Amino acid sequence: MKNIDSFIRPDIRELKGYHVEDIPCRVKLDAMENPYPLPDDLWTMVIKEVKGTFINRYPDPKAAGLKRVIAKQLDVVPEDIIIGNGSDELIQMIITAFCGFHEKILYPVPSFSMYEIIARALGRGTVEVLLDDKWDFPLDEIKERMMDGDIKIIFISYPNNPTGNCFSMERILRIIEGFEGIIVLDEAYFDFSKKTFLSYLKEFNNLIILRSLSKIGMAGLRIGFLVANRTLIETIVKVKLPYNSNILSQVVSRVVLENRELIDAQVDSIISERERLLKGLEGMEGVTPSPSEANFILFNTYEEAIVIYNRLIEKGILIKKMDDSGRLKNYLRVSVGRFEENDDFLIGLKDSLGEP
Amino acid sequence: MKNIDSFIRPDIRELKGYHVEDIPCRVKLDAMENPYPLPDDLWTMVIKEVKGTFINRYPDPKAAGLKRVIAKQLDVVPEDIIIGNGSDELIQMIITAFCGFHEKILYPVPSFSMYEIIARALGRGTVEVLLDDKWDFPLDEIKERMMDGDIKIIFISYPNNPTGNCFSMERILRIIEGFEGIIVLDEAYFDFSKKTFLSYLKEFNNLIILRSLSKIGMAGLRIGFLVANRTLIETIVKVKLPYNSNILSQVVSRVVLENRELIDAQVDSIISERERLLKGLEGMEGVTPSPSEANFILFNTYEEAIVIYNRLIEKGILIKKMDDSGRLKNYLRVSVGRFEENDDFLIGLKDSLGEP
Repeated sequence: MKNIDSFIRPDIRELKGYHVEDIPCRVKLDAMENPYPLPDDLWTMVIKEVKGTFINRYPDPKAAGLKRVIAKQLDVVPEDIIIGNGSDELIQMIITAFCGFHEKILYPVPSFSMYEIIARALGRGTVEVLLDDKWDFPLDEIKERMMDGDIKIIFISYPNNPTGNCFSMERILRIIEGFEGIIVLDEAYFDFSKKTFLSYLKEFNNLIILRSLSKIGMAGLRIGFLVANRTLIETIVKVKLPYNSNILSQVVSRVVLENRELIDAQVDSIISERERLLKGLEGMEGVTPSPSEANFILFNTYEEAIVIYNRLIEKGILIKKMDDSGRLKNYLRVSVGRFEENDDFLIGLKDSLGEP
Repeated sequence: MKNIDSFIRPDIRELKGYHVEDIPCRVKLDAMENPYPLPDDLWTMVIKEVKGTFINRYPDPKAAGLKRVIAKQLDVVPEDIIIGNGSDELIQMIITAFCGFHEKILYPVPSFSMYEIIARALGRGTVEVLLDDKWDFPLDEIKERMMDGDIKIIFISYPNNPTGNCFSMERILRIIEGFEGIIVLDEAYFDFSKKTFLSYLKEFNNLIILRSLSKIGMAGLRIGFLVANRTLIETIVKVKLPYNSNILSQVVSRVVLENRELIDAQVDSIISERERLLKGLEGMEGVTPSPSEANFILFNTYEEAIVIYNRLIEKGILIKKMDDSGRLKNYLRVSVGRFEENDDFLIGLKDSLGEP
C-alpha cells in the first residue's frame, strides 16, 4: 500500500468541502428554492419535449436553443452567453480563466460561501472584506485592498446572500470603474429584486453578470448562465468542459423559459409572501429581520440561534442556521415558502421563542 | 475600456479549447454514441419517473439512488463511488485534487484528448509518451519518465481511444505497482471490452477507475462515475461542486440501469456489428483497420484521409478525422452504428477510395 496522503495537494488536505444538511422535514425553507412545483400545463409541455429527446446523443455543446430564448428575454445576443452546470460551475470557470495559482479573489462577507470554497479548491487565495453595519458594501476598504496587485477577481452578490439586501449601486459602480481586473455581479436573486447591472455591460468590459434558474423553479436542473463581452466569453469558453450542460436540462429549461409568464406568476407570489413574512417577523418579540429584496429573509435572534433552529426542526420546519463564528452569530435565514408553509414557520417560530 | 487581455491568465491566452465538429449528416458515426435510442418500454418507465420529479428542488448532492444501483452492479459500496457531470468533470476533479499548479500529468499518445485539454486549462503540465507500433503501452519509457518527481497522475484509457485496443494488462500492473502517484484507469469503453481493473482496487490504493454511461445510450445525460478507495474518494469530494449532478440525469440513468438487460442487448448488437464492420474494412483495398475492443474502429487510409473524410460527408456520412500532425496522419475513426448505418458507411467508403 502506498502513502496516499502524500499524493494529495497540500492545501487540499486541510480543505473542508461544502456541507449540505440532510434533515428531512415537513416544511423545507432552507435552500432558496421556488416552493411551487412546475404548473401542470407547463409540465405537460415539458414532458412532450422530453419524449422527443434522444438521450443516446451528446448534448449541443453550445446549448443554442436555450441560449436563444435567454438572449431574447435579456435583449442580448446568444454569443454573449455561456451556460453553466449551475452558477457554481461558472464561478469555477471564471476563477480558472482569470486568476493564477495563489493569486486572489476578493468578496465581501458575509456573502455566498461558494466563492471561497471554489477558490480554495482551485488553490487560489481569498481576501474577505466585512460589510458595514447596514450590510452594505464597504467601498473604502475594498478600494484599498483591490490595489494589491494579486487580486484578480471581485465577486459581488446582488442581492446579497445571505443578507438579502442589494448593495449601493453607486458604490459598486465606483469599484467597477476603478478595478483593474474582473468584476462578477452575481444576480442569482435578480428575479426577486428586479435590479440589474446588465445595461452596464456595454460601458464596462471587465464586468460579468451571473444569473441562475435555480431560484425560480429549476434548482434540480443545474442551469446557470453568464453574460459578458466577447473577449471574456471567448476566454471562459476555453476552460469550459465541452459537454457541461446536459440534454434534458437544456430542453426542459428552454420550454419553461418559453412559457415564462407561468413562472413569473410564481415569482410574484414569492415576492408578496416575502413581504408578509417580513411583517410577521417585524411584529415578533425576540427577533430582528433584515430587509430583503431576495426570496429569503435573514434574521437575528436574541436567544441562541441554534436552540431556536433545533426547536423548529422538532416541529418539522427546516430553515438555515448561519456560521456562528463571525458576524452571523445568532442569525438564521428562512427561504420564502408557500402561504401555508410561511404560516407554519411564523407560528412555529413564535412558539420557539422564549421557551423555558 | 480596460485592457482585458492583461486580465487573462497567460497560459490560458494561448490555449485552444476542445473543438466539436457540427456537420449535420444523415449517418452520424463520429462520437462513439450508442446508435440505438432507448427502447420504448424503458422510455415509458423513464417518463413515469420524470413526471414524479420535483425540478424546483436541488438534486441530491450524493446521488444516493443512482449510486446504490451502480454499486450493486459493480459489487462495491456506494461510498466508494463519485458521480460526475460526465467523465470530463471527474478528470478535472482528479487533476485539481492531486496535481499542483505546473506539476504534471502523464498519458500515452494517441489517447483521449481531454486529458491534455483539461490539464492545460487548469495550468498543469503534460508529459506525452508515444505508444509502440502495435499501439501498446511503452512500459520502459513510462517507467523512466514517471521517476521525474513532478508527475503526479498517469491517465490510461482502457480500451484506448482512439486506437480501440486494450493495452497489455501486465504492463499496466507494473506501472501501478511502481508509481508513487495516482493512476487513473479510464474504462469508458468497458462495456464493449468486458475487461476491467476493478478487482485491483483492493490491492492498489493509488488506483482510480473511471466509467461512463455515455457510450451505452446516455451520452446526453452526462453521467460518469469513478470508483476508488475511501481516502481518494474523501479527497476528491472536497473539490467536487456539491450539486454537480442534476436531478433528471440522476433519475433517468437510475431507471435505465435498473433495467440494464434492455441496454445490454443493444451493447451485444454493437459488439457484433463492430466485428462485421472490422471484417468489411479488412476486406477493403486501400484501408487498414486496427483491431478494436471498443465501439469504434480506427483505420489507416492509403490516400489522404481528409479527402476520404470529405467524400463521405458528401454522401451524408460523418465519421471522425484524426489530428494529422502526428502518429495519426491519414487515420480516420468510425463509431459502430446500426446495421444499415454500417452498411451505408462501408459502401460509401468503398466508393470514396481510389476515386479520380
